[in-house]
Formats: sequence, C-alpha cells, structure tokens
Amino acid sequence: MQDDSTDQQGYFITLEGGEGAGKTTLRDRLAERLTQLGHSCLCTREPGGTEVGRTLRSLLLQGGDLAIETELLLYAADRAEHVASTIGPALQAGQVVLCDRFTDSTVAYQGYGRQLDLAVIEQLNRIATGGLTPHLTLWLDIPVREGLQRARTRAQQTYESLDRLEQAAIAFHERLHSGFRQLALNCPERIRRVDASQDREQVVADAWAMVTARYPQLSQPA
Amino acid sequence: MQDDSTDQQGYFITLEGGEGAGKTTLRDRLAERLTQLGHSCLCTREPGGTEVGRTLRSLLLQGGDLAIETELLLYAADRAEHVASTIGPALQAGQVVLCDRFTDSTVAYQGYGRQLDLAVIEQLNRIATGGLTPHLTLWLDIPVREGLQRARTRAQQTYESLDRLEQAAIAFHERLHSGFRQLALNCPERIRRVDASQDREQVVADAWAMVTARYPQLSQPA
Repeated sequence: MQDDSTDQQGYFITLEGGEGAGKTTLRDRLAERLTQLGHSCLCTREPGGTEVGRTLRSLLLQGGDLAIETELLLYAADRAEHVASTIGPALQAGQVVLCDRFTDSTVAYQGYGRQLDLAVIEQLNRIATGGLTPHLTLWLDIPVREGLQRARTRAQQTYESLDRLEQAAIAFHERLHSGFRQLALNCPERIRRVDASQDREQVVADAWAMVTARYPQLSQPA
Repeated sequence: MQDDSTDQQGYFITLEGGEGAGKTTLRDRLAERLTQLGHSCLCTREPGGTEVGRTLRSLLLQGGDLAIETELLLYAADRAEHVASTIGPALQAGQVVLCDRFTDSTVAYQGYGRQLDLAVIEQLNRIATGGLTPHLTLWLDIPVREGLQRARTRAQQTYESLDRLEQAAIAFHERLHSGFRQLALNCPERIRRVDASQDREQVVADAWAMVTARYPQLSQPA
C-alpha cells in the first residue's frame, strides 16, 4: 500500500524515548491493532534488528568498556544492515514498519548524552540510512526519574541486571531527555510527543490517534 | 622512546597491500629484528586487533552478505577500538607498533575495490582514528595474479577455504591495486613501495632498510 500524497512507499514509524518510557509495549499494541485491521506490519528494533545486529547488540549492551567512537560506529553498522536488509525491503513491499529506536536515539544518547560531535553523528546517520528518514516518530516523553524507576522495577521483576546504559548517571539521562526535546522542536512535522506518564491505555489511545491522523487509511480495514 | 625530530611518541608502522603480498610474514620478521635489538614491539592487525575486533573480524570475513555500508562501518568500529585500546597506548608508551593493514586498506578495498564514496571513507577514517596517521607505511606491491595465486596456494596448504575477499573477482583486485598505487603517489613521504615479488629475504632486507633510513635509532640496540 502506498501513501498517495507522496511517492513514499510503506509507512515508516519509529518510537523514541528514554529508558522505561514503554516503547516496546506501545509498538506491540499498535501492531496488534494494525494487524487486526489487515495491515501488514513489521515490528523491529535497534540495535539488534538483524542477525548481524544481534551480535552487535550484545557487544554494545554487555560488551564492557568500548571506546565511545567504537560504540557510535557499531550503532551505525547495525543501522546500515537493518535499513538495507529489513526496513528498506519492508517499505518497498508497502508494509507498516514500527521500529523501536532509530536515528533520533543516536542523536539523543551519543550526541546529547555522551556529548559526541553532533555533525559526526549526522554524517554517520546519513551513511547508515542512505538518507531514509522516518515518516512519523512518536516520542514517548516521561520524566527522567520516573522512567528510570520503571526500568529498575522491570529489571528486578525479570531477574535481569540493568544494562550498561540504564546504569549510567541521572545527569546523563537528563541530557538525553533534553536531546529528545530539542529534536522534537527541530522536527515538529515528523516528531510527535506522547505523554508517556499517563496510564498505558491512554498512551495507546493517544498514539493511535496520532498515527491515524497522519495516515487516515490505516484506521480502516485494509 | 621518542623521535626527537617531532613530538611524536613511539613508531607507528603499517604494512599494506593486496592478498598474498606477504604482509604478515614481513611484519613478524621486522618485529624479530627489532626485538633482538631490544626495542619493544607490538605486532597487531586489522580487522581483529582487539577482543571486540575479533568478533567483528569474524562477521566481516565469514559473515555472509553484508550490506556494503555495514561492512565499511564495521571496519571503522574495529579501527576505533583498536586505536583507542591498543595502538594509542602502545605509542604513548614509546613502542614500535607494526600493524598489518590500517586506513589505506579501507581506501583501497572499499573505496577503489567496492567503489564506495572516497569522501565518506575519509570521514570514517578520521572518526575512527581521531586523526592518528601512520608514521611510515610499507606498501607490499605484487602483481595481482601472482598475489592471488600465492593466497590460493596458502589456503590449500592449510586446508582453509579462501575468505570472502579472496574469492572476489580479479577485476576487483586490479582496482584495489590501482588504489594502493594512487595512495603511494599521493603520500610519497609516508608510503614506501616494497617490491614483494622478490624472494622473501630480499623483501625483508629492503623493508628493514626503509625502516632504519626513516628511524636510524631503530638500527641500534635500545
């Protein structure tokens, strides 16, 4: 299926935000609704959306002390493979792609959080995506301490240790939150803020309204 | 030990060239001589000079069909980690670093061989190295068919299959040979051509003469 208003194929929707904002849950709930209406959906994520990417994800999240440039380049490699092998073909086939994290996370985490050069990050994003930009981005905005508390509770419930990024300092998370906020200011057409501190059903309802306002055809059976 | 003529620390010597040129053998022979004279040497290589890099090397050389941008970014990630964790500290400690392949291989293989944008490759090399350039590069020049024949013979002797790059077409190897030639023309001070079709002892003797002409102090006991 194609958006008639442009020559764009498929629907490329990304979910962004800090730890514990509920991106994965929302992605899966949106996919459930779309699938029930007969729309073909691909649920994916970064890092780790491809076979190679799963190796890279494990290097990134449990790999010990990587140099900051190494980390940035591994995220870019994961993204290049993901776009070439998974996202690009799904969009060509007219699918709805729902992706948990994409280029905005790199800008927020590595640019604002780790304070790497934003121009370098944008160069790498361009190289990795070949210029592909999400059509719609849902930014799940939640106060930093509330998101971290949720992430900690989840980790305890599942007996997992907090991953490397979740262990980082509050100050880091404050910086990346301001990164997402700045991105939303810079790209008001593409990035929509969802109040993720609401209860889960309201978050899903708000996000669904944003998706179907942007793409009325997705609210109808395929 | 430090080169008094500059504020450079250590000695960063890279070995470059196509398949079967004899880079690893020469690297190890030079290290043997330097070590016998009491100079502290680090023998390393790309890809795969670090623990993370060994995972990346195996993805790169046996990982199936990676997107061309993925490959480029993985080489850059491997290099960033190698410079930050291994080469940089060794140079800071005044060691002689002998590295089998570095940035010139990426320019030759991915730029000339796979015909990716040279400006993008130079951006990635800068990001990965933080601007570190080899002090001396020995280009082991061997005619393409002779090098490939040597690489094939070696693979049969050791019962290994040829790796992915060695299986690529002759035309590819002709392009990368012209890439190394162009790099040597562009950087005559840094890159010295070694005639690698000579017998092994003569190759070692020529390379040793180039190293000690550049660094007379390395021809003396430490």
